[in-house]
Amino acid sequence: MTEKSAQVDHRAMANAIRALAMDAVEAAKSGHPGMPMGAADIATVLFSRFLKFDPKAPDWADRDRFVLSAGHGSMLLYAVLHLLGYEQMTIEELKRFRQLGSRTPGHPEYGHAPGVETTTGPLGQGLATAVGMAIAERHLNAEFSDDLVDHRTYVLAGDGDLMEGVSHEAIGLAGHLKLSRLIVLYDDNSISIDGALDLAESGDALKRFEAAGWHAVRIDGHDPEAIAAAIEAAQESDRPSLIACRTIIGYGAPNKQGTAATHGAPLGAEEVAGARKALDWPYPPFEIPSAVRDAWRIAGLRSGQARRAWEKRLAAVDRERRGEFERRLRGELPVDLATAIREIKERFAAERPDHASRKASEMVLSAINPVVPDTVGGSADLTGSNNTLTPGLGIFSAKNYAGRYIHYGVREHGMAAAMNGMALHGGVIPYGGTFLVFSDYSRPAIRLAALMGIRVIHVMTHDSIGLGEDGPTHQPVEHLASLRAMPNLLVMRPADAMETAECWQLALESRATPSVIALTRQNLPAVRHAYSDENLCARGAYELVPASGNAMVTVFASGSEVSIAIAARSVLEREGVPTRVVSVPCFELFEAQPPEYRRAILEGTPVRVAVEAAVGFGWERFLGRDGGFVGMTGFGASAPYKQLYEHFGITADAVVAEARRRLAALDQAIEP
Amino acid sequence: MTEKSAQVDHRAMANAIRALAMDAVEAAKSGHPGMPMGAADIATVLFSRFLKFDPKAPDWADRDRFVLSAGHGSMLLYAVLHLLGYEQMTIEELKRFRQLGSRTPGHPEYGHAPGVETTTGPLGQGLATAVGMAIAERHLNAEFSDDLVDHRTYVLAGDGDLMEGVSHEAIGLAGHLKLSRLIVLYDDNSISIDGALDLAESGDALKRFEAAGWHAVRIDGHDPEAIAAAIEAAQESDRPSLIACRTIIGYGAPNKQGTAATHGAPLGAEEVAGARKALDWPYPPFEIPSAVRDAWRIAGLRSGQARRAWEKRLAAVDRERRGEFERRLRGELPVDLATAIREIKERFAAERPDHASRKASEMVLSAINPVVPDTVGGSADLTGSNNTLTPGLGIFSAKNYAGRYIHYGVREHGMAAAMNGMALHGGVIPYGGTFLVFSDYSRPAIRLAALMGIRVIHVMTHDSIGLGEDGPTHQPVEHLASLRAMPNLLVMRPADAMETAECWQLALESRATPSVIALTRQNLPAVRHAYSDENLCARGAYELVPASGNAMVTVFASGSEVSIAIAARSVLEREGVPTRVVSVPCFELFEAQPPEYRRAILEGTPVRVAVEAAVGFGWERFLGRDGGFVGMTGFGASAPYKQLYEHFGITADAVVAEARRRLAALDQAIEP
Repeated sequence: MTEKSAQVDHRAMANAIRALAMDAVEAAKSGHPGMPMGAADIATVLFSRFLKFDPKAPDWADRDRFVLSAGHGSMLLYAVLHLLGYEQMTIEELKRFRQLGSRTPGHPEYGHAPGVETTTGPLGQGLATAVGMAIAERHLNAEFSDDLVDHRTYVLAGDGDLMEGVSHEAIGLAGHLKLSRLIVLYDDNSISIDGALDLAESGDALKRFEAAGWHAVRIDGHDPEAIAAAIEAAQESDRPSLIACRTIIGYGAPNKQGTAATHGAPLGAEEVAGARKALDWPYPPFEIPSAVRDAWRIAGLRSGQARRAWEKRLAAVDRERRGEFERRLRGELPVDLATAIREIKERFAAERPDHASRKASEMVLSAINPVVPDTVGGSADLTGSNNTLTPGLGIFSAKNYAGRYIHYGVREHGMAAAMNGMALHGGVIPYGGTFLVFSDYSRPAIRLAALMGIRVIHVMTHDSIGLGEDGPTHQPVEHLASLRAMPNLLVMRPADAMETAECWQLALESRATPSVIALTRQNLPAVRHAYSDENLCARGAYELVPASGNAMVTVFASGSEVSIAIAARSVLEREGVPTRVVSVPCFELFEAQPPEYRRAILEGTPVRVAVEAAVGFGWERFLGRDGGFVGMTGFGASAPYKQLYEHFGITADAVVAEARRRLAALDQAIEP
Repeated sequence: MTEKSAQVDHRAMANAIRALAMDAVEAAKSGHPGMPMGAADIATVLFSRFLKFDPKAPDWADRDRFVLSAGHGSMLLYAVLHLLGYEQMTIEELKRFRQLGSRTPGHPEYGHAPGVETTTGPLGQGLATAVGMAIAERHLNAEFSDDLVDHRTYVLAGDGDLMEGVSHEAIGLAGHLKLSRLIVLYDDNSISIDGALDLAESGDALKRFEAAGWHAVRIDGHDPEAIAAAIEAAQESDRPSLIACRTIIGYGAPNKQGTAATHGAPLGAEEVAGARKALDWPYPPFEIPSAVRDAWRIAGLRSGQARRAWEKRLAAVDRERRGEFERRLRGELPVDLATAIREIKERFAAERPDHASRKASEMVLSAINPVVPDTVGGSADLTGSNNTLTPGLGIFSAKNYAGRYIHYGVREHGMAAAMNGMALHGGVIPYGGTFLVFSDYSRPAIRLAALMGIRVIHVMTHDSIGLGEDGPTHQPVEHLASLRAMPNLLVMRPADAMETAECWQLALESRATPSVIALTRQNLPAVRHAYSDENLCARGAYELVPASGNAMVTVFASGSEVSIAIAARSVLEREGVPTRVVSVPCFELFEAQPPEYRRAILEGTPVRVAVEAAVGFGWERFLGRDGGFVGMTGFGASAPYKQLYEHFGITADAVVAEARRRLAALDQAIEP
């Protein structure tokens, strides 16, 4: 093929993306044509010349990952997947863009169609997630060699991605870790929703990335050879790469190109017709001429041979090692985990440790990490406080990608997003620590994990006023509630070491749900004294201490307040009020129990009181309007923690008083 | 004073900070000595030679602002305030560091002591808040001239502050706006909690700030003349300034200085004794020799004359203008607001517009902004979607600080923090827009506003699946609940234009509480048809439509679902079931009502059903365990919004069915 004909081909291939994007947005009467039209040249070069993938095997483990961080440009991805021959991405799906039940939602959603590597849309997330993918790749490469793991992560990002704070954390981490296989193509179009980018931004992107240790260049994003040369140079760099591609948003739209008008709304019939002329694309909507279709199909076949060679290499690996590699990629847990959990639970039953649950978590992790080589831990610069580092993990760094522990720095949000990318990449199970109060920083990434249904484990210590002197800025009070409100997230708050072991087991076994494990800074007495083969926390709530007789009062509690509930029970029992204690380590698991179990737990007594060192918001679903709650009603304070519990009235006495009040009200209601 | 004796003085003055910090941490057995000891030289130079302030008039409007972004170094600020002669910061308060009820909590808390300009601790927030203070200063300067407003904002920030994502948004915004009066002193000590900074960070801070349009230099942070020279140069720059001050964390601690061991724990008696020797500070704990005390007191008197001159200038301003300036600074609303609200409510009663509530909000803002010159609006690059820009505001930019509208860029978090700084500075009332789902990005700053009790108004549009095709990444489902869980935050969700006007009035009048106003993308019918002088939304929940007879069913709803509740009522009434509709624009205001009012609203009927296009988490407090909820149980989907309401069953039919079920259960319970 001569260079000239290649260029003709390129232009037609890129125009196919443009046409499909504007047609689909037009059909949906909604969407973002500007980005796909502007970035079509970039995508064409990347997918037809560089990206390693096979539409016939979308889950091929050694494929390059492509992340459309500027998720509003979803039609670019859908158009490319369709043109490349991804079976499920039919032309019908493109016609159903943004319709209920289609594979083509407004923003790319993981799980809706093969080839969509992650859910994007909230800006900055794709870029930060890609950092995690690149980490996972290097880590597995260190473990399984170039033969099995040797791919790149490409990101297409826009101005909005780069303005978001999380992008700073992501590029700082990637630069520090020298993730040279991460290549970011920046759709540098100088347009934001409000208008020209310079309304709000005057930074120098190249200099910024260089300051973070990246290789950075700027090119003409409509010149295919310049794009190709830049990608080649990036592939050779020993640093992560930024390629700023100057583009014209809505390229081809005769009146609207280069303006915010193309960003987030259909072009309109007239402008679309004009674009067809300008692009020399005389075909009807959703029609692709066969020559162009063929060119794309050939691009789609490009890596088939590489995939088959990889499969041969995998087949040649010895059976045990291959089995381990495949187990890791399937995300299945090693069989030894169950034994490790049993042993640590037996040990806790025997020793009844009264450690802080963060310390118990470290003990559990020390049992898990040696038998689950999949785990990659870390902390956002609170390693000693989160108790997330166990012996022998090794530190993951530019010099040691085999390490299993990441010093994320003070980058809670970047950490959470990177963990998403690691889980999406597969082969590793990420966990990372910070203080529970700082879940606020990582919340957008936690939400995406919940939406995607991926296994990411957040270790969140210092989970209440029990952290003491650091005061209200560090004391979560609303965070349990705010996280419980999020769909598909397990929020677990173990009461002692035994429950901590069980919660860890649940988090690891929850393959389609991220977890938050909330842990204390302060010591806790053991409340579970007997070994049980059953994971009682799996019930979400269970009777921890029965009443002596016909129970009159149930005291519900989670975490550090379970021992307060037990103390309150003792007082009430002494006073002749049969009282039981229900431990509630996880709302979500409890609500998934059969109705009869839930009824037995909730409706066992006329009086219900709950105690938790947090706001009561959401507890009413168990307590009803006639239940009592002992907890926080506002922000915390700075003082030694035992004083705070007294000061805020989160005590056994307060629970007893609340129960008495409810009992008295009951008597009044019964006696006429 | 010769240069030599000045230097001797400097050293002793700085050591006073070091000694007080290590002594207070030692007494509290908790805290962070490393930062105050390392940054003592910086603070001494800044406070004794540059900062404009008067301990006798801590609220002087034209004072320089000092923000300790590295809030864990709180003892540095407390020590300085004590030494400078801030009356309330007694030596006794220093001895009560981190104790219940003291003025010296673990992290600086706004409102606890004069001289603490903002609450810090969550990293990055102080820096981002300071950007807002610097914005407010320039804005008021443009309006009231150098005579009245002419001060600087200084920030002392650490490595953690600069790693946090929000710092990127803050410095991007400050650089873009050329906030040359913002000077950041970076305590560049190369240590993080996990150990050496290079465990996690290898970026070039100077280059990074330069890329964002800042003036940036690096100096020896223990050399007072270098510090002074750098501050002088920064004051002359036409850009915001970063002064990276190389320091030794825990300076003076003989064995621990320069290590993470000094960061977050007491030094211990032996190390403290060693530090006293090394620093040549032979005085007992909490004792300051009189010469040092005098030097600091003199520093504290330094700006008294400037303040008196300013007061004279203010007194010379004509009465009306002075009154306006003083009203603005007191944060009182102009009397014309009430009229404007009445007029727009009367207009809505007459016209019954069926706009989206975001559009109604724009109409209300168009009435408010001309009569409340205090407002400074903006949006995180969603101006046209948030409907936050009204005619005549003018754009705030480096060329026009008089403008009242800020294009924040895609910087939700930075916007929220900047708004906090503007509110703290005083003289302006900030409001800013984004999509409700992206409250997740700005949550850490929203929390600080709630904790501090300041008036910041978040305009959050696209508040449910009603936004349609953009899909679940953009559709909030848990956000109302997660925000309602936060103490001291008004979460308001108006049902129509009339309620929107009332919610705006409440947000403006809530001087000690930030607000979130959740608004729809989609059109809504008017549900409030009559003008009422009373602000009904101030009740939080009120009977919008009474039942025809003895009410059997109450349907509660907020925002866009109120009209669904009304439609359901019509069906039930036709079927002979007297039904009333309660509009619930704000949980928090409702819970602040007298018990008898709450009872009347909640207990008026045997059957209670609520409808809201969000998860039900938290509604149980009104519904009880026997109430019904019609809403979301998981994430949304991408489709036209009317289809989504049908798909997820948020319809009048579903409400009717739920009410019927509850009525049937009631019959069963009554009939034996």
